[in-house]
Amino acid sequence: MDSSTVLGLAAQADHRLVALSFRYGQRHTIELERAALIAAHFGAEHRVVDINIGSFGGSALTDKRLEVPQEATPAGVVPTTYVPGRNTVFIAVGLSLAEAVGASSLHLGITAVDYSGYPDCRPDYLAAYQTLADLATVAGREGRGARLVAPLLEMSKVDIVQTALAVGVPVELTWSCYSGGNEPCGRCDSCRIRDEALIAAGHPELASRPAQAALS
Amino acid sequence: MDSSTVLGLAAQADHRLVALSFRYGQRHTIELERAALIAAHFGAEHRVVDINIGSFGGSALTDKRLEVPQEATPAGVVPTTYVPGRNTVFIAVGLSLAEAVGASSLHLGITAVDYSGYPDCRPDYLAAYQTLADLATVAGREGRGARLVAPLLEMSKVDIVQTALAVGVPVELTWSCYSGGNEPCGRCDSCRIRDEALIAAGHPELASRPAQAALS
Repeated sequence: MDSSTVLGLAAQADHRLVALSFRYGQRHTIELERAALIAAHFGAEHRVVDINIGSFGGSALTDKRLEVPQEATPAGVVPTTYVPGRNTVFIAVGLSLAEAVGASSLHLGITAVDYSGYPDCRPDYLAAYQTLADLATVAGREGRGARLVAPLLEMSKVDIVQTALAVGVPVELTWSCYSGGNEPCGRCDSCRIRDEALIAAGHPELASRPAQAALS
Repeated sequence: MDSSTVLGLAAQADHRLVALSFRYGQRHTIELERAALIAAHFGAEHRVVDINIGSFGGSALTDKRLEVPQEATPAGVVPTTYVPGRNTVFIAVGLSLAEAVGASSLHLGITAVDYSGYPDCRPDYLAAYQTLADLATVAGREGRGARLVAPLLEMSKVDIVQTALAVGVPVELTWSCYSGGNEPCGRCDSCRIRDEALIAAGHPELASRPAQAALS
């Protein structure tokens, strides 16, 4: 939902759009099918990059021997679904693509509000990455490198839901569940935060388990 | 030769060694076979990560429609073999692996001296990456993140050759040629710089075309 909202916002600005997804060993590869549909919805070219960082281990998101937690992770604790260095790798590949296609900006769905346990979703991290990007590439050193744009950085999940609906994201196509099934589990952190936000934004019919969630 | 020298230096320090190579669409995949041999020589575990950034285009190193230059690139000019964002991606993946395996340092073969045309082989770039790394990972924010170590950063190629021989690198196994054949071409920038350094260090017999090079 976060990435789709960023794409919807960029579509409003009349950019030429190239959407970038990653097959990195995640359980929930269904998100790649959904990403293709949503990219098409917004008229974006869609690229999928394969990178097997999931094989390094250490995350419940990619290691089938670990369980995806079914209880809420306490605030400030790093969830076991944390994939070491994932955003750093994703942004690096995005910068490579941006330079190869001459893109002026790289739009990211990171948000610092509801995932405070993740180290690589915070404003200081993003600022440091911009500094690096400006030194890392030919374009950056010439002052025409891609800008990192993170419009959701300070948004709550409810803000994101409202923005998604405002820019015409087909929310029913977006996929958030980490557990890897064909239906969202409704219990992992990602389902939980999404469902609470959809209900708070007045759209319980879009929640993964609307009946239970609305009653709980 | 640069990466192998870094591995040889790390082997002297009695680290547990994990060597990381990339299959990124380069013409010269023979470097991966050689990397496996050299990793084994130093008792390092060897990992190969597939990442198709070469498909983004824009570099003679990965785009078979472009020619690998057979003339020396003038100082200060970015060579056409530049792959957009390559080192940024490689280091990001290295940091991910470092965190997953609990490594205390990530050793890089970048050198600022003989490749001044590359933006991502310079001290300011490396310092900015360390700042990012310390914010990017759980380990980094807890003050126990991997240190980026670049022992060749200020070395000339002749210094590197001498260091390689001093730490027991099997130089004859190292592969530098960018052109993608089964024998080094002896003409691309990478061969040229290597051969000049081997000859200057007193080892013309290790150069790719020792007879011609020694006579020229």
